[in-house]
Amino acid sequence: MAVRNILWIMCDQLRFDYLSCAGHPSIRTPNIDALAARGVRFTRAYVQSPICGPSRMSFYTGRYVRSHGSTWNGFPLRAGEPTLGDHLNEIGVRNVLVGKTHMKADLEGMRRLGIDPGTTIGVHVSQCGFEPYERDDGLHPDGPYSPNPPYDDYLRQHGFDAANPWEHWANSADGEAGAILSGWLLAHADKAARVPEERSETAYMTNRAMQFMREANADGRPWCLHLSYIKPHWPYIVPAPYHDMYGADDVVPVVRSDREKRDPHPVYASYMQERFSEVFARPGVRERVIPAYMGLITQIDDHLGRLFAFLDEEGLADSTMIVFTSDHGDYLGDHWLGEKELFHEVSAKIPLIVADPSPDADVTRGTVSDALVEAIDLAPTFLDAFGGRPKPHILEGRSLMPLVRGEDWQRRYVISEYDYSMRRARTDNGVPIADCRMTMVFDGRWKLTHVEGFQPMLHDLDSDPDEFVDLGADDAHACVRDRLYAAMFAWARTPKSRITVSDADIAAAYGRELDANILIGYWDEADVDAARAERRSRDGDKPG
Amino acid sequence: MAVRNILWIMCDQLRFDYLSCAGHPSIRTPNIDALAARGVRFTRAYVQSPICGPSRMSFYTGRYVRSHGSTWNGFPLRAGEPTLGDHLNEIGVRNVLVGKTHMKADLEGMRRLGIDPGTTIGVHVSQCGFEPYERDDGLHPDGPYSPNPPYDDYLRQHGFDAANPWEHWANSADGEAGAILSGWLLAHADKAARVPEERSETAYMTNRAMQFMREANADGRPWCLHLSYIKPHWPYIVPAPYHDMYGADDVVPVVRSDREKRDPHPVYASYMQERFSEVFARPGVRERVIPAYMGLITQIDDHLGRLFAFLDEEGLADSTMIVFTSDHGDYLGDHWLGEKELFHEVSAKIPLIVADPSPDADVTRGTVSDALVEAIDLAPTFLDAFGGRPKPHILEGRSLMPLVRGEDWQRRYVISEYDYSMRRARTDNGVPIADCRMTMVFDGRWKLTHVEGFQPMLHDLDSDPDEFVDLGADDAHACVRDRLYAAMFAWARTPKSRITVSDADIAAAYGRELDANILIGYWDEADVDAARAERRSRDGDKPG
Repeated sequence: MAVRNILWIMCDQLRFDYLSCAGHPSIRTPNIDALAARGVRFTRAYVQSPICGPSRMSFYTGRYVRSHGSTWNGFPLRAGEPTLGDHLNEIGVRNVLVGKTHMKADLEGMRRLGIDPGTTIGVHVSQCGFEPYERDDGLHPDGPYSPNPPYDDYLRQHGFDAANPWEHWANSADGEAGAILSGWLLAHADKAARVPEERSETAYMTNRAMQFMREANADGRPWCLHLSYIKPHWPYIVPAPYHDMYGADDVVPVVRSDREKRDPHPVYASYMQERFSEVFARPGVRERVIPAYMGLITQIDDHLGRLFAFLDEEGLADSTMIVFTSDHGDYLGDHWLGEKELFHEVSAKIPLIVADPSPDADVTRGTVSDALVEAIDLAPTFLDAFGGRPKPHILEGRSLMPLVRGEDWQRRYVISEYDYSMRRARTDNGVPIADCRMTMVFDGRWKLTHVEGFQPMLHDLDSDPDEFVDLGADDAHACVRDRLYAAMFAWARTPKSRITVSDADIAAAYGRELDANILIGYWDEADVDAARAERRSRDGDKPG
Repeated sequence: MAVRNILWIMCDQLRFDYLSCAGHPSIRTPNIDALAARGVRFTRAYVQSPICGPSRMSFYTGRYVRSHGSTWNGFPLRAGEPTLGDHLNEIGVRNVLVGKTHMKADLEGMRRLGIDPGTTIGVHVSQCGFEPYERDDGLHPDGPYSPNPPYDDYLRQHGFDAANPWEHWANSADGEAGAILSGWLLAHADKAARVPEERSETAYMTNRAMQFMREANADGRPWCLHLSYIKPHWPYIVPAPYHDMYGADDVVPVVRSDREKRDPHPVYASYMQERFSEVFARPGVRERVIPAYMGLITQIDDHLGRLFAFLDEEGLADSTMIVFTSDHGDYLGDHWLGEKELFHEVSAKIPLIVADPSPDADVTRGTVSDALVEAIDLAPTFLDAFGGRPKPHILEGRSLMPLVRGEDWQRRYVISEYDYSMRRARTDNGVPIADCRMTMVFDGRWKLTHVEGFQPMLHDLDSDPDEFVDLGADDAHACVRDRLYAAMFAWARTPKSRITVSDADIAAAYGRELDANILIGYWDEADVDAARAERRSRDGDKPG
């Protein structure tokens, strides 16, 4: 049974393990837990790149990074790359955005193709296939590159005026003697943001999602609404009462080992030296920052409770599939790292819950799946859920709907990629920009990270679940590496670039030269007559 | 010194070895030989796919087939794929077509992007970056799919009227008692086409090229003219006097061995069973067809003589670089095959001559280069020749201009790909459509052909220049296969898909977070002040 609507909630930088239903001992996420209880929670879901932009472009296209080519934040998605929005629009479903995408328009490509960014198509292409009901990437620092988002106007309208309302209210705290303290700085993570909670970004985006759903009800067309919160992504600052909801006692121990610092892989070593990594190794930083990170998550959870209640009230709950996920994790000091970008579980693995209200999904309701799944599975999942045709020549993922409705499939390995050309790992190690590629292949136990021009990294998650021991150069594990490299090679040599012709098109076009009077390899008239007679006897009088 | 214009001549299905300058013992190609004598003749140039459409899309984009995705004839090149024309237009050079491209427009993609095929941009996209002064793919059989090319109107205007003038005059011969014999049929290859030579396609396209050059002189902008003959591609029929210029005595012996039929690779076996292969194994067929094939080549050569004289007369010779090549070869019965499509030398290797009139190229004039080169090298060569900037993040080939101007570079291996989903090799062997991929890697001696799901083929061109002995399963050659597979893997995992951002863009954008007031990983105000001070002392007051 096809679903009527999809509410696709994404958090930004939410680790897989910072949910109560995922086993976190101190965080409170009752509404997300309740969602998991009425859906399937996937415990082994991986992003196609552990950083916002490329990860999202894979979510939004259903294609690997090596296919869509947007390898880092702000690297434009090429004009013409087919998107989830293209596929959904074809079957009459609106693909609507409230929040963040990290899409940067390929203005140069659009200019070449004569696409005016102001037209409906221009907006669609610029917004990677979304109808931007509310586009807000959620970082509006002071400076020459700042946008002027509707959220700033919203703050102004509610009395929170400033040259940069986001920076002044949402990203600042009150200091002593009237000082304004910057939310960018980790030292202030324990203070309340100056904005009242009900005017915060999370509250605002939730409200906007509800506004959209009300309007969409009147419109009548089915929709996929991407409610894309920019939190708990840094800046790590949250309004009251969430700023002191958690304390140092709620912070789980750091996961790191001195062993990781002994002869680390050169790229890993550079990441350990990034400012965002080193700061998390200072005493007290995790204890200051992580409670704010947790507060941001519980704040989202509270608003999701409000949103789910709204769905009930509006009569949408029975016809709306809800999907909850994140675009990547956050090291938060684990492995001597901050941010994300490498392939440890806390970075590349994401929470993923699919709650399908239809009776077909009753069989899996409240269960947990350890199937290996990928971010690119969502686009085909959505197309499938709405009853659309699969497009295996374009979409590189696989629909999760069978898993949600009680049928099984197995993926042998997941792939994730990363381009470190914008990081010091490039300059530290003198790597040419085009070679700054890493590719992870993970089969559920062994995680191999190929680093172009270097030895790989290898971890055994069975014997070493914390990923402390790099077996990338260990002689005893050459066979494991060979096997994973073979898998990576099979993947690398089968990109889905033939996007203009489907397999079905090929099957239908096969063997039609004779119908087109293209006569290749016939000696004489008798040869042709014989072939035509054979064709007729085989196929009858079907048109060519 | 940048060249002023480029005349880029392409034949269709011309083998590398059917030129007198390439050692053919009986064919006469004095004008092409003379071109080689004033340029560099490349003896190891390979196409990216041994079939018209994909090969040409690689020529026209400078990108491998796995990148541009047009894997077979008539599979549209995706709208937005950057073309040679895009790159040349950017530097003010017209990219003009007279003849064949085999481009099929991605009308569905254009519709999605709102590109009207009738606009200037729509034509550019539809014609894969060419200004179609004369577009003619040169096959106009009777039937529902036939275009109505200007050449048909030309024939009509000159008294050669018919429902299908091409079929009736250019592709037919006179039989007994007023019968009209079809040029499609190999039995009639020894007869003269009914069209007078001066009204043939080869003559007409040459005339059109001259018309363009006269007009372009008046226009004043530099140009790259792609004069793309559809011959000596089948139908194998040529007007007098070329139809009987060569006879059976001029036909070189077939290159095939019974050994090839013993336990052949399953895909190769299927190709041997194609109609176009089997017919060439019949006695007398080569002797009937090849003289016509040779006549078509000598006819082109004669018109090139006329064209080169025209360049002299118009004063264009000193400023126009001339490039001569083909899109793939033709088995003509060698290896028990007809057509092209597999990777034997006679199929995947092409003639290539680059004649640069500038004094910088005097040092190589009249020489032969055995460098391993690829079809995708031409687009960067042209950009380079016109003085354009290289685009290594888009163009996957390498400029040949250094080789032409006396500097050396070495490519370690060439790659060619083929999608056999439209051939019986798929149905015979029950291969899923998406898996019908072959990839050749050739290092100058060893040629490995990977066939997805099968064992590979391997040939040693040093000890077995005729490619009779398939070592794909030979235990003694496992190391060679491993080495070539490693090369193929390195190629497969480094596609150039990040086309919207250049390496230079990345180098320039690196390390600018602070300028944008994005403060990641700073503990407190002192941290930021210190970083700003360090930035100032390092970079001075340069704007961010």
